Amino acid sequence: MEFDAEKVTDYLHQHIPVTQAMQIKAVPEAKEFLKLTAKLAPNLNHQETAFGGSIASLGILAGWTLIHIRLSADNVRYKIVIQKSEMEFLHPIESDFEAECHFPDQKLWDQFHTGLQRKGRARIKLECAVMVNQQVAAVIKGTFVAKQLEPLK
Amino acid sequence: MEFDAEKVTDYLHQHIPVTQAMQIKAVPEAKEFLKLTAKLAPNLNHQETAFGGSIASLGILAGWTLIHIRLSADNVRYKIVIQKSEMEFLHPIESDFEAECHFPDQKLWDQFHTGLQRKGRARIKLECAVMVNQQVAAVIKGTFVAKQLEPLK
Repeated sequence: MEFDAEKVTDYLHQHIPVTQAMQIKAVPEAKEFLKLTAKLAPNLNHQETAFGGSIASLGILAGWTLIHIRLSADNVRYKIVIQKSEMEFLHPIESDFEAECHFPDQKLWDQFHTGLQRKGRARIKLECAVMVNQQVAAVIKGTFVAKQLEPLK
Repeated sequence: MEFDAEKVTDYLHQHIPVTQAMQIKAVPEAKEFLKLTAKLAPNLNHQETAFGGSIASLGILAGWTLIHIRLSADNVRYKIVIQKSEMEFLHPIESDFEAECHFPDQKLWDQFHTGLQRKGRARIKLECAVMVNQQVAAVIKGTFVAKQLEPLK
């Protein structure tokens, strides 16, 4: 999946202002997955590790951004929102961290995409890992719903 | 549960800086539950509604703050972290919002508190509702772990 990381980062900072406060950036080199990074300092908790809410935010945002980028090729306006999530926080995060969201299986994506085009609304489950120093620190499973905003033909 | 809301807000802003960016505040009048509020503007998403990550953060923080305040009476330093969470996002949030975390059943709390004092570590499940205009917009179930930082006697 190719995309302009700088443009995606600008989009996030402009439309979701808390991503700027959290110093979140999209990473260009990732190929098999969508990767976002966050700085530790603005996301600290009382224990000098990353705040659970920031970890959750980064994971949710990685899933959302993956769908947003993939659907942007359609040239149709969609509304993408998270409907459900399950998170496990495995290890404290003591430095800058990142979220990786792997592309879903092609069959799963096609199902989602076809449903979206036919019914104007579809749902997809994604799993994102929040990593620190190459170690999985949290796992986030999210169910996202996309809805076509333009009237269906 | 009595607490100084201004002091709690100051603590959050100082130790968890993203809570300042999100304009989160503790509310003094709540008696049966812990209530935090957040402004919509700094927590907007691309759809002019609240960002899912901010909703998750506020819910997690309400649970964390409830435990933090309740345990502060002990005069022992604890580390409180979220271990797991399940969230359902029910309605879009189009104005300032708040999270309410009800006090757990006294028996459940006593079990948690006794375990913590005996073993130096205990776990508790809390449920928080994120509300907007008196309507439940999201439900967050969190499992929190508290650990005594001072050596046990």
